[in-house]
This record gives sequence, structure tokens and C-alpha cells, in this order.
Amino acid sequence: MTKWRTSLTRIEPNKILVRGYPLDEVMGRLTFGEAIYLLLMGEVPSPAIGSLMEAILVSFIDHGVTPPSTLAARNTATTGASLRACVAAGVLGFGRHHGGDIESGMQFLDAGLELVRKGATYHDAAKEIVDRWHSAREPIPGFGHRFHTRDPRAARLFQMALELEIEGGHIQMIRAVELTMAALPPGRALPINIDGAIAAVCGDIGIPPEIANALFIISRVPGIAAQAAEELAREHPMRPIDPESHVYDGAAERRLPEKRR
Amino acid sequence: MTKWRTSLTRIEPNKILVRGYPLDEVMGRLTFGEAIYLLLMGEVPSPAIGSLMEAILVSFIDHGVTPPSTLAARNTATTGASLRACVAAGVLGFGRHHGGDIESGMQFLDAGLELVRKGATYHDAAKEIVDRWHSAREPIPGFGHRFHTRDPRAARLFQMALELEIEGGHIQMIRAVELTMAALPPGRALPINIDGAIAAVCGDIGIPPEIANALFIISRVPGIAAQAAEELAREHPMRPIDPESHVYDGAAERRLPEKRR
Amino acid sequence: MTKWRTSLTRIEPNKILVRGYPLDEVMGRLTFGEAIYLLLMGEVPSPAIGSLMEAILVSFIDHGVTPPSTLAARNTATTGASLRACVAAGVLGFGRHHGGDIESGMQFLDAGLELVRKGATYHDAAKEIVDRWHSAREPIPGFGHRFHTRDPRAARLFQMALELEIEGGHIQMIRAVELTMAALPPGRALPINIDGAIAAVCGDIGIPPEIANALFIISRVPGIAAQAAEELAREHPMRPIDPESHVYDGAAERRLPEKRR
Amino acid sequence: MTKWRTSLTRIEPNKILVRGYPLDEVMGRLTFGEAIYLLLMGEVPSPAIGSLMEAILVSFIDHGVTPPSTLAARNTATTGASLRACVAAGVLGFGRHHGGDIESGMQFLDAGLELVRKGATYHDAAKEIVDRWHSAREPIPGFGHRFHTRDPRAARLFQMALELEIEGGHIQMIRAVELTMAALPPGRALPINIDGAIAAVCGDIGIPPEIANALFIISRVPGIAAQAAEELAREHPMRPIDPESHVYDGAAERRLPEKRR
Repeated sequence: MTKWRTSLTRIEPNKILVRGYPLDEVMGRLTFGEAIYLLLMGEVPSPAIGSLMEAILVSFIDHGVTPPSTLAARNTATTGASLRACVAAGVLGFGRHHGGDIESGMQFLDAGLELVRKGATYHDAAKEIVDRWHSAREPIPGFGHRFHTRDPRAARLFQMALELEIEGGHIQMIRAVELTMAALPPGRALPINIDGAIAAVCGDIGIPPEIANALFIISRVPGIAAQAAEELAREHPMRPIDPESHVYDGAAERRLPEKRR
Repeated sequence: MTKWRTSLTRIEPNKILVRGYPLDEVMGRLTFGEAIYLLLMGEVPSPAIGSLMEAILVSFIDHGVTPPSTLAARNTATTGASLRACVAAGVLGFGRHHGGDIESGMQFLDAGLELVRKGATYHDAAKEIVDRWHSAREPIPGFGHRFHTRDPRAARLFQMALELEIEGGHIQMIRAVELTMAALPPGRALPINIDGAIAAVCGDIGIPPEIANALFIISRVPGIAAQAAEELAREHPMRPIDPESHVYDGAAERRLPEKRR
Repeated sequence: MTKWRTSLTRIEPNKILVRGYPLDEVMGRLTFGEAIYLLLMGEVPSPAIGSLMEAILVSFIDHGVTPPSTLAARNTATTGASLRACVAAGVLGFGRHHGGDIESGMQFLDAGLELVRKGATYHDAAKEIVDRWHSAREPIPGFGHRFHTRDPRAARLFQMALELEIEGGHIQMIRAVELTMAALPPGRALPINIDGAIAAVCGDIGIPPEIANALFIISRVPGIAAQAAEELAREHPMRPIDPESHVYDGAAERRLPEKRR
Repeated sequence: MTKWRTSLTRIEPNKILVRGYPLDEVMGRLTFGEAIYLLLMGEVPSPAIGSLMEAILVSFIDHGVTPPSTLAARNTATTGASLRACVAAGVLGFGRHHGGDIESGMQFLDAGLELVRKGATYHDAAKEIVDRWHSAREPIPGFGHRFHTRDPRAARLFQMALELEIEGGHIQMIRAVELTMAALPPGRALPINIDGAIAAVCGDIGIPPEIANALFIISRVPGIAAQAAEELAREHPMRPIDPESHVYDGAAERRLPEKRR
């Protein structure tokens, strides 16, 4: 019988090689974010791409108690389930309307770049793909948010991409779509959200859609785990969880020390 | 009706505060590993603790195709399930005999430190707790591995703890247990594994067991996702997956560039 | 290498034997409930035990929108996840405080029967185990409900057990505990719930605790699936789900036709 | 704020109405299979449809140790996870290539019936849809099996539908496709499988695709639970599970007693 093949990690007695690198050498020399990139993409990232990888992973780390995936995890926690059961229930809620937007966002931008390759300007390509999605009665992927009219995470990610000089066609395209969207009548004039920003940045640094999907899952797991752990620690079992009826009682707004990095 | 409370993340229009820090300021200034510590523990880690946090998260990132959790994820992938379903199935396999060892490892070491606080030497305390676990016919948590007789990840983590000067009672205790174990007859003379090393380091930097549990889940999710993505990309659907019958065909053994960090 | 063994189902080309019976012969001759008993216990149930099995499975089939497991499934559904992902999230919420009570209920009753075997009356044994659980600050398993002061399902199950003449020591013991509980001061005087009734009946018909656990999961899956399907069909995506804020708009109260069975 | 609505189950103190019927009255008068139909479809089934419902649910109850969903559950069990975690992992493996075939099978047959309504014969419609699926390089849903060349469950289900006089257009259509398929060259000449038979029967008794999907999940959960329970009871933890390397050691082939039903 022929053997099946794997290219990720080689295990030998007293030796673990991740993509060829001894894991004990990777410890202390690559950050977790860089090691995630190595594992998923096969190579150590350049410093610029490594920095963007960290920023992408940090940007999604938590979004409070109201995302349905977080509520699935908290409802599981209140039954007395284990932390891993809560995390699994939360991950299952990264559905079509939540998180999965990165993949559809990349397909949307790629449709525009296809037109640019055929000679259209970014401006005309943006108008064309927005029309196409509207005609199909599909939401524009990567635009609009339940809470935010200007997503601070998206703005920061674009600023970092600019400073690190990795802006490419995908970011140009989403910028053109942003202008097209801003000219629409109120109600349809939606701002870029973090899913859209990540889709554009992933496109420009060569991360394929299925890996971008994996990044979303990886980035939110700490938030799901922290929320489930808080539910287990602070609340009584079997409580009804109304997502709206909560209040924040944590640390007051504060600034990171200037010298940090 | 009184409102329920959360101390993790505050959401306001166009503002996301994680433990008080604006998330867009955290992006680019904390790594993902540091942000995970911030979210779970409530404060930005010191540089030394931040480095250990990264190393702990990296140490568990993947262990090839044979862990049952990875096989649960691959068996789910072969049915054509979504990546998030595969990850959820994998996370559910971080059970009592796999991963959960960190929590029991911390309880084991704490039992020894309790004796030290009452006047016992580390040497005597180690002998006493090993006897106690053996009498209860329980395995010694944090010792032994299916593949490794000397776990390279454990050695590296202790070396980093030494260099970063955060060694404390838990590491001293597991060292004492290591000597006790080495004196046992063959078959019972097991080496420290990575679960044991992480349990000791987490104990010395003040991470409670339930958060150490969360760290294990978080650290292995990239591996589960990468393995499921590889299954979806390389294999045909509905195949029977024999864990032993595989071969590694990835990058040959290589070294990280010297100047990296 | 020695082969591993299974005693459940034998598969040969064009032949499927469940516990020795050709599955195509079982179809149309055993009900689903009887086939579940056959699969889990290894033999075709007697008519009386078959009827109780159906009643147990029916009794748990759904309990409206407020159980946390149902809310985990609905929160997963609102993200646009697949039905199987919603069911998995719901099943994970059959935790320690929800459903798992059957296993602890059986252990509780067995503790009483142990005393009876040593010569105690049911009355004294019941008082002793209630005291023991209260002293350990544990809730009495199988007693009390968030909504019901007299659980109609428990009453019906005991009536059926009486009519089918399968009452044994476990039902006698829970009846004795019921009297003991009723004599307690208000607040502690809790009624038998359906978990307690099922624990007693399962004990008397020889179903071990781990199989009783399986029965609970099996019985509630239709409810979880129906609730998730309703969420997907009737509600818009990504809605906040307040468990209290719902209204029932289904069929009015009605009676089964008299001649049914 | 307007309240959200549910039409499944009404909960009042000491009263549980499923689709309008008091649950304690349903116990003992409807079987579990009939109650599943009531919950999902809203009405008590006729005796004929009730019998088919039981047969459909029984037909899928287990298929031995080799389905990937079963292997996901067993790999989860070997880590020491809870039974509900194993069941959840198994349910996640009812993916696109496994179980989900019922929904695509119904769409396939409906495409044929659309042509019949426009005047085509069943024979011509069958040839047309087989060509259409082959041209799109899609497998013919409901045909072919890894083990069986003649699926005994499918034959039995059609026989029951005939005896109970509920054959309709969907069964006629799949029969026409069966003839078309049998005339294909070896390798493409696949037999009807149980997914196809269930798709046809569900179509003829008016069960919509999303409910047929729920039926598949419900029907296999007992098998997943039984397999996970056997793994937990018979095997040692953390074992590598080779799906091919097993042997059946259960009851020998036997017949149901004649008088049963």
C-alpha cells in the first residue's frame, strides 16, 4: 500500500521539525505569529510581513460579548462544559455571515483586479464590481459593521501596510471601492470593515483565501477562550444570557507605555 | 433587572478597548502572543514573561499527523466539512489524556510545594508526591511521551526560563521530581515532557491552571488548522486515514538565519 | 499486528448486521427507539422495555428555546453555519449542569440502594443520602426544575413503569427520597424532575449510567435540530438572541386522536 | 422591543406542549420516530408515513467503524473526552461527501421532475439529468457506495414504500435513473445507495431537503454514540486507530423472532 504524505511537521524520536526547522530552535527566535505564518505558508516571513501578520492576528483577538460565536461559547459554558467544548462551540459560529467574509472579500477584490488586468482603471473596476454584487442582491463583502461607522482596526492596518511598503493592487482596489461606496445614498454608503482590510492585505502579501480563513479562526480563539473562562469564573450556572443586558466593569481606558517596541 | 458584567473588552462606536487599551494602538505594538497574555491575564506582560509566552505558544504549535486530535480534524476534513468544523472537531480531542495534562501537572507540583512550605526539602517533597501518585495508580503528570525520551521543547523552555531569570519553586520542584523519576526502575523512569515543562513555567510566572488550559488550546489551533487545510488540499475525499502509514515529504532539515532576533 | 475489535456492526459487501441482525430486516420490524436499544444494549428489548425506551426518548425531545444548549445552537445558526455545526454546538452544551444529571442521579440512587442492601429501610436510606449530599453542599440530583414545580413528564414515566410492571428498587428509592424532600423547609423541598425519573427507570431496567448518558444526547438531538432549522428559516442572520424575549406562535393546545395506539 | 417567535414548543409551569400536544400525553402514544416527525413537520404522521419514518431512521443508525465521522468520534474518545464531545466531533463529519448527499439527491430528482412536468417522459428526463451532472463533472447523487454493489437498505425502503402505497414521482424518477445508470459502461454503472433511496422517499412524502438533512443527523447519532462508548469502554487511551485493521467479534448473524410486529 502506498503511504500518504504530509509536508508540515516531521516527528522523530527527540526531534520535531516544523517546515524543516527544529521546533526547539524556533522557540525564542520566532514569535507565535511568525511561527503561525511559517506553519501555514511554509517559510519564515520577512520582518515586514511578520509585523503585518502579528497586527492581523491582534486585530481580531476579541470583540466583546455580543458576536454570536462568543454567545454560543458562553451558553455552552453556563452548562458546566469544559473550556475546550466552549471553544469548539464558538469556532462553529465563524459562519458564512461572520468571519467567512474574508474569503468572499478576497474573491470580490480579485474580480475587480481581473478587470484592471484587462485594461480598466481601478475607479471603473470598482464601480463595475459594486454594481455586479448589488445586482445579485449580495452584500458588498468587507464593508459595513453592526457597531462601527469607521473601523479603527481597518484604518490602523492600512497605515501599517503603507509604512511597511507592502501596499499592492488589492489595497488599491479596496480604496477605489471605498470611494465608490462613499458616493452611494445613505444606507448603502458603508465604510470598510476589518474583514475587508484583512482581505486586501492578505491579497497583497500573497496569502490564499483558505489560509486567510484559517487566520481568522486562529485569531479569535483567544477571545472565545477568554470569554468562556470569564463566564465559568464569574457567573452562576444555567443562567439566561441576554446579549444586550451587560455592562463593562474592567480597566479604564489607558495607553500603552511609549517605549513598548 | 440587573445587568451582567464583563471585564475583557469594551465596545463603543468606532472604539474597541481590550483590557482598557485601544485595539488599534495594540496592533503593531504588541505581538499576538503578548496580546493573548493581556487578554487572558489583564496586563501587558514584562518583556521576559512576554518572551516565555511566545515560546510556550510556539512549543505546542504542531506535533505531526498522529495526535488523535489531529486525526479527528483530518477525518472531519475528508468528509468535505468546512475548515472551522475540522478545527472544532480537533479542539474537542484535547481531552483528559492529551493536553489536559497541564492542569493536572500544576496540581501535582502544587502538592509538592505545599510540603515544602511545611518544611520538607524539595528532594523529600518530590519523593513523597511521586509515591502518592503511584499509590493512587495515577500516571505522574508531565512525565513520559509516546515518541520522545528527551523532549527537546522541554529542555529549551527550561533554558529560556533560566536565561530570563524567572525560575521559581515550580521549576525547582519539577527538577527534583526529575531526579526522583530517573532513579526509578526502567519503565517507570520517565523524562519530563512539554506538558510538565509548561506546567512548571506557568506556575512560576503566576498563570492559574484554567488559563494554562486556554493556552494549550490556543497554541495547537494553528496546527489543527494547517493539518485540516493540508488534508483538504492534498487528499481525495472519504479516504480511510491510517495514522501510521504516512511519509513526510516537506522541507529538509534547515537552520534559522543567525541574525533572526 | 493484532487487530482491534468491535462488537456493534458487521459490514460485508451488500450486508449490514447490527448486533447480528440484518439491518434491512430490522427496518419495518423494529422502531427507531427499539433499534437504539438494540444498538446500545446488544439485544432486542422486550415489549415493555421497548415502550419505556420510546417514552424516555420522547420525554426529552425538546424543551423550548431557553435551555442553554438550544441557545448555543441558535447562536451558531444565526451566523449562517450548517445544520450539523448547529447540532454539534448544541450537543456540547449537555454539560455537567444540564442532562449530565442522569448519571449523577443514578449514582445517588445507587448510594441509597447500597444502604438498603445492608439492612436499612428505604425511608432511612433516603434520609441518609439526602443528608450526605446536603452536607457535601451538592444539589440533590434529579430534583428541582427552573420552570416546573411538578414535572408532568416524570409523573407520566412513573405511571408507565407501574402499568408495565417494571418498577424496582430505584423507583422505590426515588419515591422515598421524594417523601424526604417534601418534608424539608420551603426552598429545599424540591420535586422530582425528568432527569431523576429517567435515572430511576434506567436503573430498574438495567441500563448503565454511560448508556443513560447516550440516551439523553440521542433524545434531545431532534429538538436541537428543529430549533436550529427554525432559526435558519424564520430569522435574519446575525441577530442578538435574548432568551427571555420570545413568544410562542405555533399550534394551539390540542389532543391526540383517541385511537392512536 | 418586539419579541421573536417560535412555533415548536410552548413551555408553561408544569406544562410542555410540543406542536400543541402535551408532551406527557405524547409519551406512550407516539413512538420516538413519530414524535421526531411531529416536531420537525408540525403534524402527527399517518400510520404509513410513520412506518416509513421509522424505517428511514433505522436504515442509517450505524455503518460500522469505517465512516470518517465515526473515526472522528473514536479519535476524540481515545483522548479521554466526554461522550458529548465525541458525538459533536462525529456530527461535524456529516459533510458534503457524507450524508449531505440526501439534499443534493433531492435537488437532482427535482431537476428531473421539472422536465417531466414540461412533458418529458421519465426515461428521457433521467437520461437528461444524468448527462447534465456528468457534463458538470459532478457525481450522480444517490448512486454508488464504497462497499455495496446492491444496497440492501435501499431495496427494503422501496419495498416498504410500495407496500404502504406511498410511491410517487420521486421514486419513479430514481427508478428511471437506475435503468439509465445500469446501461452505462462498467465503472460508471453505479447502483442506488441508501442516500438516494431516502432522498426519493422523502421527496414523495413531502419532506423538504433541510428537514431530510436533519433526519440524517438524527438517525446516525445513536451509531456515533455507541461507537464512542465502545471505544471508551474497550480500548486503552491515546491509541493510533487504523480504520482497516479491525475485526468484528460481536453476535453471530441471527434472525428477528417472527412474531415481532
